[in-house]
Amino acid sequence: MILEPSDRGLLLADGLFETVLWLGGLVAFAAHAARLRAGCVALGLPAPESDDLEAAALAAVRDAGLEAARAAVRLTWTAGAGGRGLDRPQPVIPRLFASAAPAPPPAGPARLVTAEIARNDRSPAARLKTLAYLDNVLARRAARLAGADAALMLNTAGEVACADAANLFWFEGEVLVTPALQCGVLAGTVRAAVIARARAAGLEVREARVPRAALEGAAGLFLTNSLIGARPVASLDGRALPIDRRVAMLSPPDR
Amino acid sequence: MILEPSDRGLLLADGLFETVLWLGGLVAFAAHAARLRAGCVALGLPAPESDDLEAAALAAVRDAGLEAARAAVRLTWTAGAGGRGLDRPQPVIPRLFASAAPAPPPAGPARLVTAEIARNDRSPAARLKTLAYLDNVLARRAARLAGADAALMLNTAGEVACADAANLFWFEGEVLVTPALQCGVLAGTVRAAVIARARAAGLEVREARVPRAALEGAAGLFLTNSLIGARPVASLDGRALPIDRRVAMLSPPDR
Repeated sequence: MILEPSDRGLLLADGLFETVLWLGGLVAFAAHAARLRAGCVALGLPAPESDDLEAAALAAVRDAGLEAARAAVRLTWTAGAGGRGLDRPQPVIPRLFASAAPAPPPAGPARLVTAEIARNDRSPAARLKTLAYLDNVLARRAARLAGADAALMLNTAGEVACADAANLFWFEGEVLVTPALQCGVLAGTVRAAVIARARAAGLEVREARVPRAALEGAAGLFLTNSLIGARPVASLDGRALPIDRRVAMLSPPDR
Repeated sequence: MILEPSDRGLLLADGLFETVLWLGGLVAFAAHAARLRAGCVALGLPAPESDDLEAAALAAVRDAGLEAARAAVRLTWTAGAGGRGLDRPQPVIPRLFASAAPAPPPAGPARLVTAEIARNDRSPAARLKTLAYLDNVLARRAARLAGADAALMLNTAGEVACADAANLFWFEGEVLVTPALQCGVLAGTVRAAVIARARAAGLEVREARVPRAALEGAAGLFLTNSLIGARPVASLDGRALPIDRRVAMLSPPDR
């Protein structure tokens, strides 16, 4: 599909997206479709039908010849063309774009460095998967320049929020901890799956608002997103972290 | 020009833009080109040549048949296609998009309401004209739903920052006040022009970091951007504000 340069997704980041893992089938598709639809309500956009999303995702995999590969499907839902400046047109006629690309599994544990850019927990966009991803791009770029793989992001209150493209978990003794959604954190599909798996295994799970210093005593820090499942963190700001054997147990089995 | 759906401007808001007023010629073009080029340095993107920007802007006006109109030229500079997720490709091959649309002058003084969404002064993007404009779109939408024209935005420290698509000025007695750039404010071309005009007229100008309450005693609140020049504010959060005759004097004469 061809995108006009007048699309509000390009001009104003006015839209949402999902990244869905393909492993011979769409993984956790229902959760992705539900999140995208909920995001539309929050942004005041018409929502796509789940069936249309699924058809577009399947067509993207087929068109890219990736049926037999491990692939990432990107679904982008924009506010379409038009409007005067910031004001949306009436009615909004959204657009859907879908593409697929190979997605090899991550190359081992990740090295994290803390970003200077804060996650804006004072915007509802921080809890949604919106097109306004530039802060994350810049945080990643700074992390790469520092020799790391990804950035740890704190929110405007200095609380631990997430990585630049992943949710964050760690252990405090026998308790599994992850930043609360109120920290300005995406409601990750794998985040929810890991919490459910941990509770089913009898672990206590705490959604917390904690300062950066709380990570000094943390064990088994790991990242989650739909493409990587659960990925251990090897180091934080240059300090090596031991890999915790419980992480593998909590990763969704299909990742 | 046709935009691929793989463009990082669409997928990640990885890029910058300028909105230039056309009044039989490009107004303050050099200032816009210089800001875009400086923004590229801040984001780590290759910068466009000013001559190429100008040629694209002129072509957009001509193609839209707007030579004789008051028009807005939108110049969009993206990080181009490719890369894996957040990581940019090496090398980055940016893309330029230009379009023009009629831009009638604003319809009288603006009604403002204070936004709940905070301006993220903890990101360098807050001081640049980036594609990550969704917070502004959402603030504008809330303002419209509240019966106003635009939103007043505070930063994460509760300081007055700007409107959703304009810089902000007011008078404290004989002193002209505007939020300091450190508040997370775009270095507006008209903001700079108004400061220069005020100083040339013998007015004291103060770039300030002040809380929302400082506006309670403010006189002559007004907005500036490249399309509106200086636009008075008629009300803030439902409280009527007197129009100050000094505002018209400070507006650039070509607006």
